[in-house]
Amino acid sequence: MELITDLHTLRQTLALHREHRRTLALVPTMGFLHEGHLALMRQARHHADVVVTSIFVNPTQFGPNEDLAAYPRDLDRDLDLCRSAGVDLVFHPDARDVYPRPPRVLVHAPDLANRLCGLSRPGHFQGVCTVVTKLFHLVQPDVAVFGQKDFQQLAILKALVEDLNLPIAVLEGPTVREHDGLALSSRNTYLDPDARAQATAISRGLFAARDAFQGGLRDPQDLIRIVQQHLDAQPLALPEYVELVRADDLTPISHPIDAPAVIAVACRFGRTRLIDNIHLNP
Amino acid sequence: MELITDLHTLRQTLALHREHRRTLALVPTMGFLHEGHLALMRQARHHADVVVTSIFVNPTQFGPNEDLAAYPRDLDRDLDLCRSAGVDLVFHPDARDVYPRPPRVLVHAPDLANRLCGLSRPGHFQGVCTVVTKLFHLVQPDVAVFGQKDFQQLAILKALVEDLNLPIAVLEGPTVREHDGLALSSRNTYLDPDARAQATAISRGLFAARDAFQGGLRDPQDLIRIVQQHLDAQPLALPEYVELVRADDLTPISHPIDAPAVIAVACRFGRTRLIDNIHLNP
Repeated sequence: MELITDLHTLRQTLALHREHRRTLALVPTMGFLHEGHLALMRQARHHADVVVTSIFVNPTQFGPNEDLAAYPRDLDRDLDLCRSAGVDLVFHPDARDVYPRPPRVLVHAPDLANRLCGLSRPGHFQGVCTVVTKLFHLVQPDVAVFGQKDFQQLAILKALVEDLNLPIAVLEGPTVREHDGLALSSRNTYLDPDARAQATAISRGLFAARDAFQGGLRDPQDLIRIVQQHLDAQPLALPEYVELVRADDLTPISHPIDAPAVIAVACRFGRTRLIDNIHLNP
Repeated sequence: MELITDLHTLRQTLALHREHRRTLALVPTMGFLHEGHLALMRQARHHADVVVTSIFVNPTQFGPNEDLAAYPRDLDRDLDLCRSAGVDLVFHPDARDVYPRPPRVLVHAPDLANRLCGLSRPGHFQGVCTVVTKLFHLVQPDVAVFGQKDFQQLAILKALVEDLNLPIAVLEGPTVREHDGLALSSRNTYLDPDARAQATAISRGLFAARDAFQGGLRDPQDLIRIVQQHLDAQPLALPEYVELVRADDLTPISHPIDAPAVIAVACRFGRTRLIDNIHLNP
């Protein structure tokens, strides 16, 4: 496995692969990898000759009061995990090389970003869209793999690839969970034992709502209430939103649910912000 | 010369060229071609094996009160001109194929666009950035050629390629002028004989300012005033702006001029909006 930090070396190395007509898959990450990331890499492994993982904590997707400085990092461990997942090339650039100056040109998705997580994280998805576009241009992958855990991000990036005519197939990886249901996230490491125990309310609420949906409950407000009740039972939970939206355009869905939908949750436990979601297919 | 309207056919045709390791140049245009466009195509001809010209009147760069519907079109004439300039492939898509839905993801340059032409044309440069990004992704050129006449557009697109890490070399073509100095523009066709005669005040003013600069005048306000006086002498001229800005970041330049600078003008003659500019190199 190769580790590349320099943008020019990356381009040269990938040009060589392309000359040999090898297909490329990209799995963008912010590092501090967990089984969720590794599942994406193994998925990528099945769809391309060369699997590239980027490890880059992108400053432009963090707000001024967010956890950029504190975001967990462990490159040596990450490299071992990438190797174990069959990654061929890790791209780990320096922020000064990715942004040699304040960015003048940005990619954004105003309507899709102006809801759910975007409301409490202004500029976040513009940062995500911009850095992913840059990575797409640097790597020029045939395939890119993103996790369903970041549901809004996935919807926006699928729109990005489609609307900007990028010749890239987007694959989605299912959310990987702890044994008690908590969705894997690099930010879970922030949780103290009490918060960690209570955080399972998110997935328990989502599973309960899905069960009720499969049992025939079709009123969005009733389904949302099931999740809210699970969160409200936890003294440390500070729910940010529980919403039921169309899976395609993220707009709120009204009764009865007649299109693929998603219940999406953001909830803080202390300073730790967790998100999760579940799909409902009528 | 090949004419392609279908996006999928374009991708297939260009993939074949790429397989044969031919380099590609793109010259994006809105058609109704003039000698300025043809000069860009001939320039492209010297820098790539295959020259692609796009002819697409991009709706998203026109404001609601602008001349989208009236914008002049003459495809047969354009194709003859492309052929004469050595173009290999004309891409002339339908707007419904370029925008099968209202765009959800957009490319913009907020700071660079929020000045000069951007002030009277809100959304214009976002439309330009978005469509050019789409064309870049569809064609994947090695080289792209843009005219210096659209000075702010050129500055923004150079920033776009650099900031988004596009593997494309941007070439710039000098402004081509009528014998009396008027910069060539598809919109010149809108001018009635009186306005056409008076419109030369733009280039006469710019040349006079440049001559004064070369003669040692270094005060931006004095140089701007020279252009304004030429415009003010024309009863039909409705000047929108005359600005002296840094060539790199478009910010106003103060006395004394110590970096490459540009005097940029936008002026209406009736409903016809003309732009022009001249470089000052200290």
